[in-house]
Amino acid sequence: MYKINPNVECIECIKCYHRYPLKDYFIGCPRCFEKGKPSSVSLNYKNFNLNNNQSGFKKYTDVLPYLDFPTIGEGSTPTVRMKRLGDELGLENLWIKNEGQNPTGSHKDRYSPFVVARAISLGFETVAVASSGNAGVSIATYSAAANLKCVVLTTKNMNPIWKQAIVQTGAEIIYKDKPMDRWEHLQRYVLRNEWYPATNFINPPVGSNPFGVQGLKTLAFEIIEDFEQLPNIIIIPSSRGDLLWGVWKGFNEALENGLICDIPKLIAVEPFPRLKAVLGGDKYTDNFEGDSTHTPSVGGTTVTYQSIQAIKNSKGKVEVVPSFNAINEQEHLGKYGIYAERSSSLVLGALNR
Amino acid sequence: MYKINPNVECIECIKCYHRYPLKDYFIGCPRCFEKGKPSSVSLNYKNFNLNNNQSGFKKYTDVLPYLDFPTIGEGSTPTVRMKRLGDELGLENLWIKNEGQNPTGSHKDRYSPFVVARAISLGFETVAVASSGNAGVSIATYSAAANLKCVVLTTKNMNPIWKQAIVQTGAEIIYKDKPMDRWEHLQRYVLRNEWYPATNFINPPVGSNPFGVQGLKTLAFEIIEDFEQLPNIIIIPSSRGDLLWGVWKGFNEALENGLICDIPKLIAVEPFPRLKAVLGGDKYTDNFEGDSTHTPSVGGTTVTYQSIQAIKNSKGKVEVVPSFNAINEQEHLGKYGIYAERSSSLVLGALNR
Repeated sequence: MYKINPNVECIECIKCYHRYPLKDYFIGCPRCFEKGKPSSVSLNYKNFNLNNNQSGFKKYTDVLPYLDFPTIGEGSTPTVRMKRLGDELGLENLWIKNEGQNPTGSHKDRYSPFVVARAISLGFETVAVASSGNAGVSIATYSAAANLKCVVLTTKNMNPIWKQAIVQTGAEIIYKDKPMDRWEHLQRYVLRNEWYPATNFINPPVGSNPFGVQGLKTLAFEIIEDFEQLPNIIIIPSSRGDLLWGVWKGFNEALENGLICDIPKLIAVEPFPRLKAVLGGDKYTDNFEGDSTHTPSVGGTTVTYQSIQAIKNSKGKVEVVPSFNAINEQEHLGKYGIYAERSSSLVLGALNR
Repeated sequence: MYKINPNVECIECIKCYHRYPLKDYFIGCPRCFEKGKPSSVSLNYKNFNLNNNQSGFKKYTDVLPYLDFPTIGEGSTPTVRMKRLGDELGLENLWIKNEGQNPTGSHKDRYSPFVVARAISLGFETVAVASSGNAGVSIATYSAAANLKCVVLTTKNMNPIWKQAIVQTGAEIIYKDKPMDRWEHLQRYVLRNEWYPATNFINPPVGSNPFGVQGLKTLAFEIIEDFEQLPNIIIIPSSRGDLLWGVWKGFNEALENGLICDIPKLIAVEPFPRLKAVLGGDKYTDNFEGDSTHTPSVGGTTVTYQSIQAIKNSKGKVEVVPSFNAINEQEHLGKYGIYAERSSSLVLGALNR
């Protein structure tokens, strides 16, 4: 049985800063939701000291929702210097933080332990996730590790390799016609209190499960440890911005606690203008059409408030790199010994600009 | 340009212990080869101190062939406790060292940096590898990272995912009809001094490139660091025994230098009796027929002397687990949140015995 971290103080809206008791708010901040401006909630902690005698995530449990959680070797991914590629691009210090070396191959493995711990601590027998790939594999795997049932809601387009990995964990896959149908299905079972949701199900959306998003902060903490001098720019592929915001939040907590003096600029890369349109004046609650055929992991027609906040607060910006570019960029990275998923390869396109 | 570690003393045969000057001996020990008893050679070092202010492989460079080498985040793989599976099997302490979290997905990433460093330090423009999968992907990737040309010799049966990964690095793939044809092709170009060989090409075989095998010792060194009390048994899937011997050698060097007091028993798992037959009285230079359809990474009809040495010197043994079992065992591990290649899944079969 996993117990909530006693250092958690409350839940807080990231937009209106209203504070709520420590519960689940799947629609994000109830007040902002009422106003038609959905916004994620986050967790506040009483204090933040590094547990320097611990390694991995345990070092950061002061600001993680659970002190104990299922673990299969997530995080502590390598930071690889790209000397030759940097030389070609005229960049003296170019590094890749290779999140592909997580247990199921993506940064979602920083997220899943806390969603699964949360579901189990509340007594749920089943966790459910709407996903086209990475998140589904990750939640299914951590559920298997913790002996929790898992349902993955997806579409027929799911990549067969992801499908095979999910089936192998014993998770159930439910195919829906359209991505939005997954959200409706998920919502129905959450309202019945049968499934604990690992992902958003409202539209316009908020960020994913706030307990999971807390785990994404570890990426910022590791980057702080990896470098003597912090990078001034970090490029992150983005759709609804869980990672973008989680990384910003991690840096911000480190800043507030005197661990760092400045936050790197976060640059979001997307396959067509969504965040870019919002920064240009569109409403973040709008729908955005565009092509993400080759980069499903950063697909979707929606934007979340959290992404805008992470970009603005870090003085960052958005680069749009067309989805079809990812094919060449993935191949190009291969020539330097880096295997990146197509969505991650968009980072190279952003670097070229 | 990579420079040889000045702490390297000489090359030594692992069987007759004859010492040779520091050069490449692709046929293994020339004396043992003449006698029709092929045997690997290894590197001797003057002394062994841990570089405790370093992390990753750099900590162990006293006993690695190169102080500098191409690096893309190899090693430091997670050691995951399998509590539930252990309970089911009646084992209080069951752990998996997940080598799948290396950059190209296997332990070969501990091997490749030193082969590539060796090839470049000798002035070769091309490295070549005979492989059905993991070794090919790994050597191709480290070659790409170090800007060295790479040729992968394989058969038409190569798994398309491995093929895609190799193509992505820019390496050339040459398809041969039979596995032994790869060795002949490789030998021809090595004798012409055109290619530096990353793998064996003689039959009966010796272990793979001795400079690369040195890198496999890091797995033993990491296990020593991962545990306060060293495991008493380690199970390793095996065909020609590079990993088996490399792990034994690492433990043995640690023992000789007072870092540990005892060496864990090494248990080799194979899909049909090869090592088992040799331990039962067959010659290690014989040919062995059997089925490895579902586990090509531990296929092959030959045995090497090094495997026998590692098993005997660690007081270990051999378990035979039929190749077709790997399908169920892979699925079974998935239910505990572990993705293992089929060949690695044989370990579960050995545990069950």
